[in-house]
Amino acid sequence: MERFSATYLIETPLDIAAAAESLAGEQSSGTFVSVPGETAALKERFAARVESIREIEECSSPSLPGCSANANSYRRAEVVVSWSLENVGYNLPTIVSTVQGNLYEMRQFSGLKLVDLEFPPTFSSHFNGPNFGIEGSRRLTGIQDRPLLGTIIKPSVGMSPQETAELVRTLAEAGVDFIKDDELMADAPHSPFNERVAEVMRVINDHADRSGKKIMFAFNLSDEMDRMLDHYDTVISHGGTCAMVSLNSVGIAGVKKICDRGKLAIHGHRNGWGMLNRHPLLGIDFKAYQKLWRLVGVDQIHVNGLQNKFCESDDSVIRSIKACQEPMFGGWEILPVVSSGQWGGQAPETYRQTQSIDLLYLAGGGILAHPDGPSEGVKALQQAWEAAVAGLSLEEAIVESPALLRSTEKFSKHLCTGLDQTPTSQGALVQ
Amino acid sequence: MERFSATYLIETPLDIAAAAESLAGEQSSGTFVSVPGETAALKERFAARVESIREIEECSSPSLPGCSANANSYRRAEVVVSWSLENVGYNLPTIVSTVQGNLYEMRQFSGLKLVDLEFPPTFSSHFNGPNFGIEGSRRLTGIQDRPLLGTIIKPSVGMSPQETAELVRTLAEAGVDFIKDDELMADAPHSPFNERVAEVMRVINDHADRSGKKIMFAFNLSDEMDRMLDHYDTVISHGGTCAMVSLNSVGIAGVKKICDRGKLAIHGHRNGWGMLNRHPLLGIDFKAYQKLWRLVGVDQIHVNGLQNKFCESDDSVIRSIKACQEPMFGGWEILPVVSSGQWGGQAPETYRQTQSIDLLYLAGGGILAHPDGPSEGVKALQQAWEAAVAGLSLEEAIVESPALLRSTEKFSKHLCTGLDQTPTSQGALVQ
Repeated sequence: MERFSATYLIETPLDIAAAAESLAGEQSSGTFVSVPGETAALKERFAARVESIREIEECSSPSLPGCSANANSYRRAEVVVSWSLENVGYNLPTIVSTVQGNLYEMRQFSGLKLVDLEFPPTFSSHFNGPNFGIEGSRRLTGIQDRPLLGTIIKPSVGMSPQETAELVRTLAEAGVDFIKDDELMADAPHSPFNERVAEVMRVINDHADRSGKKIMFAFNLSDEMDRMLDHYDTVISHGGTCAMVSLNSVGIAGVKKICDRGKLAIHGHRNGWGMLNRHPLLGIDFKAYQKLWRLVGVDQIHVNGLQNKFCESDDSVIRSIKACQEPMFGGWEILPVVSSGQWGGQAPETYRQTQSIDLLYLAGGGILAHPDGPSEGVKALQQAWEAAVAGLSLEEAIVESPALLRSTEKFSKHLCTGLDQTPTSQGALVQ
Repeated sequence: MERFSATYLIETPLDIAAAAESLAGEQSSGTFVSVPGETAALKERFAARVESIREIEECSSPSLPGCSANANSYRRAEVVVSWSLENVGYNLPTIVSTVQGNLYEMRQFSGLKLVDLEFPPTFSSHFNGPNFGIEGSRRLTGIQDRPLLGTIIKPSVGMSPQETAELVRTLAEAGVDFIKDDELMADAPHSPFNERVAEVMRVINDHADRSGKKIMFAFNLSDEMDRMLDHYDTVISHGGTCAMVSLNSVGIAGVKKICDRGKLAIHGHRNGWGMLNRHPLLGIDFKAYQKLWRLVGVDQIHVNGLQNKFCESDDSVIRSIKACQEPMFGGWEILPVVSSGQWGGQAPETYRQTQSIDLLYLAGGGILAHPDGPSEGVKALQQAWEAAVAGLSLEEAIVESPALLRSTEKFSKHLCTGLDQTPTSQGALVQ
């Protein structure tokens, strides 16, 4: 029988091999000994298996409480554990319970992070994977030779459908490829979903008729199941191409049901992510996380951006972008959504480190708050990416692009390099 | 317009009031200043509001990385923030995105935990809450004057539907009120859901016909949406009364769709919980967590038990039990599921600290591995609870109950008091 496996970073005061075995036991058939009639053959068939242990380092104090406080040293190791597919079948929620489940509560560990997942080839026939992904998102927007450039409707809340549509008209004329609702806006009393879709799509369809360019708008579906399905139909009936879901807030079963409809590109917002990842020895690494959402069928997923307004390091962002672009079962690439404090100034470094234009690059204030207006904001982004791909530095790029020069004058002081900036002035302005 | 509010424990190197404002800004309308045409009136209408700040203590090092490393001190405070319902409407996933969302990633905080939530009274008419809860779970099982006593099918994986049904027969004859699938078992190739339900319910229905007592079996539905709905129908068609879902793995939209069917008591398993809560300054407190699941409509929710095999302290378990029993909108109590290493020995202390019998008390090995068989295991549990309610200590209780004495001889050495016991021997045996 095929097996799937999970890689963990663990920290334990116990013998590492014993701790790894306790992990495998908790998540499979650890009780066999106490139940009469169970055989070694059955145990061999269903027990989780510790495949490898790589010791990394020791530390003198525990990373998390809840473990014995008396130990003098805690050992860190990378551990790979595998399960027979026979334990769970092709059942994603139960696979998640199997690879995570009670593990984080085990007192054998003073740190535990799920860092990667591997699934056998048959998963590629039992799951669709992203219906659109990188290639489909390009096809729907008609953008092939550069990153998709987009923006977020701001303010997050408070605008009527008509005001939103007016802003979309401005952004359309400015030349954006993609626009998204904020994750705080879904079906609010001041902006009912169906009304907003009707108003916004009228503008987008008009613009497409005139210019031949259909802007992708990610309408925030996040809601209860039936309302999401109704809203999905609304987007289709108005000729929309994309919907957004808050992955963690909606959950795997709900998001998969949406992805399975297969008619819209699904923009996955990972808000709540910090809870799952901020501690280095607790939770789940993005590498594992995005694989789960590819199995669910999500087409686009947020990764933050370089010099973002949040706590994530540039190295971590680059790793996340690369993780999204790495094939799964020989394909299934998911489009990384670069956002948070982006305005074009980060394009050269983003390209230098990824050598890729397969990105959805979002600038909020970076477009709307450009000193010479949104059109110049979009032009600045486009030219920043042209320069980046040509191998120019930001300093070289601004010589050739007056629009980017003006962006740089305004936004470079907003690059998030420390806490000396007050968050309401910089965090709010340049999302 | 009505408002809902969230209470946070925050830790920050910044001025506390400024940090609290940045939190409120990130999660509502922080960008208003940069968008032309927005008025103070609109901001007043949609901005999140810092309602109160209570400073708690200072510490010298940050609890989480990602914040400025240069500060000399970090301040902790309890902060209450409120939002107008107009921002989101009665949309649970978007409410979750609003009260959690990007907050955990903010570099303004070196610690952030959502500790409580308050919703205005109209939520009680827009949401059903638990369809069964404590009272309904009692009605379905016919148990009124003591905790519901139950057990878990072990081993977690590997048994066929027929073997499972045989074990259910043994447990039924032993006198349990409740049995549940393990969270690792849902619709596995070796135990297809529909077959397992048919086999198990035949035993339960036979037993009910003969004894008048219908055992509640929580079949693990956790799966994709359509399969969960099909399996729900299977349980109903065989006369079942309960289904289980892995809350975190399935997610809010999927679980709510299941709860909204309203015909089965929904047993909420919180596996994955440690990821959300193990760090004292990251994630969500159980008090807030169980309120969200009550809004979703879950009837029973896991809380661990005293002296459990995991890292949770007894104080935390007691707080969780009390949180479940506290009315929400004057009712909506959710049945706390006490489990993990329970065998009756913890009954006196559990009762002393909660003064409540409104529990679903689960013992795995505590019943099946009783030295004189499962019937004596159930008797030991029942007598432990009778003694507990009578105010007896464990020492006094075992004088009156030979069955409990035998449990104590076998299981008291398995009480989880430290790491000196190897997890595979104790953790596996006494779940």
